[in-house]
Amino acid sequence: MTKAYSQMTTEELNAELAELRVQYKKVQALGMHLDMSRGKPCQEQLDLSMGMMEVLDSTSDLTCEDGMDCRNYGQLTGIREARELLGDMMENNPKDIIIYGNSSLNVMFDTISRVWTHGVMGNTPWCKLDEVKFLCPTPGYDRHFGITEFFGIKNIPVPMTPEGPDMDIVEKLVAEDASIKGIWCVPKYSNPQGISYSDETVRRFARLEPAAPDFRIFWDNAYGMHHLYDHHQDHLIEILAECKRAGNPDLVYKFASTSKITFPGSGIAAIATSPNNMEDFLTYLSHQTIGHDKVNQLRHVRFFKDIHGMVEHMRKHADILRPKFEAVIDILNEDLEGLEIGSWTKPLGGYFIMFSAMPGCAKDIVSRAKKAGVTMTNAGATWPYGMDPQDSDIRIAPTYPCLADLTNAMRIFTLCVRISSIKKILRDREAIA
Amino acid sequence: MTKAYSQMTTEELNAELAELRVQYKKVQALGMHLDMSRGKPCQEQLDLSMGMMEVLDSTSDLTCEDGMDCRNYGQLTGIREARELLGDMMENNPKDIIIYGNSSLNVMFDTISRVWTHGVMGNTPWCKLDEVKFLCPTPGYDRHFGITEFFGIKNIPVPMTPEGPDMDIVEKLVAEDASIKGIWCVPKYSNPQGISYSDETVRRFARLEPAAPDFRIFWDNAYGMHHLYDHHQDHLIEILAECKRAGNPDLVYKFASTSKITFPGSGIAAIATSPNNMEDFLTYLSHQTIGHDKVNQLRHVRFFKDIHGMVEHMRKHADILRPKFEAVIDILNEDLEGLEIGSWTKPLGGYFIMFSAMPGCAKDIVSRAKKAGVTMTNAGATWPYGMDPQDSDIRIAPTYPCLADLTNAMRIFTLCVRISSIKKILRDREAIA
Repeated sequence: MTKAYSQMTTEELNAELAELRVQYKKVQALGMHLDMSRGKPCQEQLDLSMGMMEVLDSTSDLTCEDGMDCRNYGQLTGIREARELLGDMMENNPKDIIIYGNSSLNVMFDTISRVWTHGVMGNTPWCKLDEVKFLCPTPGYDRHFGITEFFGIKNIPVPMTPEGPDMDIVEKLVAEDASIKGIWCVPKYSNPQGISYSDETVRRFARLEPAAPDFRIFWDNAYGMHHLYDHHQDHLIEILAECKRAGNPDLVYKFASTSKITFPGSGIAAIATSPNNMEDFLTYLSHQTIGHDKVNQLRHVRFFKDIHGMVEHMRKHADILRPKFEAVIDILNEDLEGLEIGSWTKPLGGYFIMFSAMPGCAKDIVSRAKKAGVTMTNAGATWPYGMDPQDSDIRIAPTYPCLADLTNAMRIFTLCVRISSIKKILRDREAIA
Repeated sequence: MTKAYSQMTTEELNAELAELRVQYKKVQALGMHLDMSRGKPCQEQLDLSMGMMEVLDSTSDLTCEDGMDCRNYGQLTGIREARELLGDMMENNPKDIIIYGNSSLNVMFDTISRVWTHGVMGNTPWCKLDEVKFLCPTPGYDRHFGITEFFGIKNIPVPMTPEGPDMDIVEKLVAEDASIKGIWCVPKYSNPQGISYSDETVRRFARLEPAAPDFRIFWDNAYGMHHLYDHHQDHLIEILAECKRAGNPDLVYKFASTSKITFPGSGIAAIATSPNNMEDFLTYLSHQTIGHDKVNQLRHVRFFKDIHGMVEHMRKHADILRPKFEAVIDILNEDLEGLEIGSWTKPLGGYFIMFSAMPGCAKDIVSRAKKAGVTMTNAGATWPYGMDPQDSDIRIAPTYPCLADLTNAMRIFTLCVRISSIKKILRDREAIA
């Protein structure tokens, strides 16, 4: 099994293929339905936050620290204690934070929409410009790319390295082209690789010299708290502080939420940014709403009490997720190591593992898996416009299925990888012959 | 006291003024701080919904009727049972409804933002047009006017009548001018008059023939359930059905929320609209978020059970608000009737009473009240750009203060009305002399 497929003879490969096809027919006959397409928490994880449903009851005092009745209108920036909790979570000063509703994606969308209609800090609204471009470290998060695409912004892929986006390219592009207005980043336990930006990468981000005065880094720190291990963790330099040190305090919009800490859809989201940017956000927000859900903010604060409570809570998430991530990695190792038909990341946190298949195989693998009852994220989804030029990248989302289902799904996945890869090698040999 | 001020001699008026000034000095010395500026529910009203804080606890099954776990991601349109409850509340088919987050104002803002950037049903995005105008039945809701103003849309006042907006003017303007793209309406227990659009007004709205194909009625039915009396209630024709009957199914966006039913800031908002419009809303929403807070939707449904539960609940609100509205009307009657220095509405529901002062007096009255410790909504606030050409309209918001405070505040208010009016009459007489 440790012989690389490319080193095997055509006869050996055909024999292997025949055997794999028998296995495939068998699993197909089982009629499984396993969904690994989205980064959703599993039920066991959701159960961890059920206590949040009873920290408030009909006799609770819903007055927050500054004396405001959380049930009523008002408090555009969010209640003080929630800003403090999320300040600790995001490693930012509470005064630099606005608490939003249930979705940081919504805040990011609204931010693009805001600069589209009203511009950044007095600059021309993007809707008035002939062309607006955005850098998309790729593979990346499909919903990020979807937002800029929806506004007609041109998404430009930038290669990811194990250290983060290729900063030589990023620096060059933003310095040369004033129509490049932003970049999407998931800097910690990135979607889909699960890698974290190196210290040097963050420092270079903070020192970018964009041609556009209204260029902004969209820093989606979605997985800041989402470690798998207690000691073996990635560390990310805090970007706001670094930008300030570098003399670029207004360069970044930072986003986070508790969606994968408490309940997706019923968490609280937040931004952290400089006072100048904050003014833009608040002017917009003051027309958009009278305030976000303060009762839910209070519920979160009373549930966690403080950041230690949240850290403890995240340890419980890790206990559920660690075996799943390890099972995926183990199966990939067992079934594929040495075959030289793909590589994969081994993240210390986050929600995803990235599999890079042989070029030209990703779509076929995902389609084969689908026919055997395993739904993966669409091949290409991690690329702008869904177009992966190498047809290589596949996002693995291990969180939602139970361990048994996950194991079955991954065995089917590796089977599909092997079949597709052999077929590809055989096709290539025929083409040459 | 029943002699009209205009019928009194200058000596009589001066004597009256001197007496009123003594009273004013007295109340000023009390150093009161009473806020009647916003339409906020009072604490007693908020207490009515505390039961909602415990319909869900740590042992609750948070699965909704279609089997979805409300704690997790998904369900863009809202859970079925919430669409049914709000369907009954809004008198619309659940399938024509999308449940949003905590604020209908936010939905209205996002709707303007959406048509600004992406247009209405394939028409040119409004940001690409040279001029966009909106009709603003006036006096009206300041936050509505603020949204369109924020996008650079030209707000055009249209006079309100006791039947609703002056439909002769509305029909003429929308037929003549294709740059008029919408109209703000609070059709039931309007802000600030508390009047409801007549059957004829609604029918004429449904039969509008706007020059602009992308003209939409922004129908903010904020007070649909907010009656003060059990039998003596306004009835509003349901606009979506009426538009459909009139062959204009796509003419209206209808908004509502539970903000003043449960908790402002922690309620659920919704739109109801035609399938064509719905497609626009959902395309946008699918990029904006993965879904709104379904746990809060479930909380609302489990708390009310059904529309009967909500109607019962609104009766309790009415029991709290009725004495307040009646106290305001009683004091206005007692202190001002016959003086011919102002008129006021006598609503059967909603959150406001509208006071029309003698022209040129509103700002002075509000400023005088402020100096005696009573904060009213700014004079002019109910007009586009805050400019009331007559300086006459003042919004009275009786809901938030307790009855004792409200009584004090209203006595101060009528005192200020009388002082300002006498001074105005005396000034006018001097000017003529």
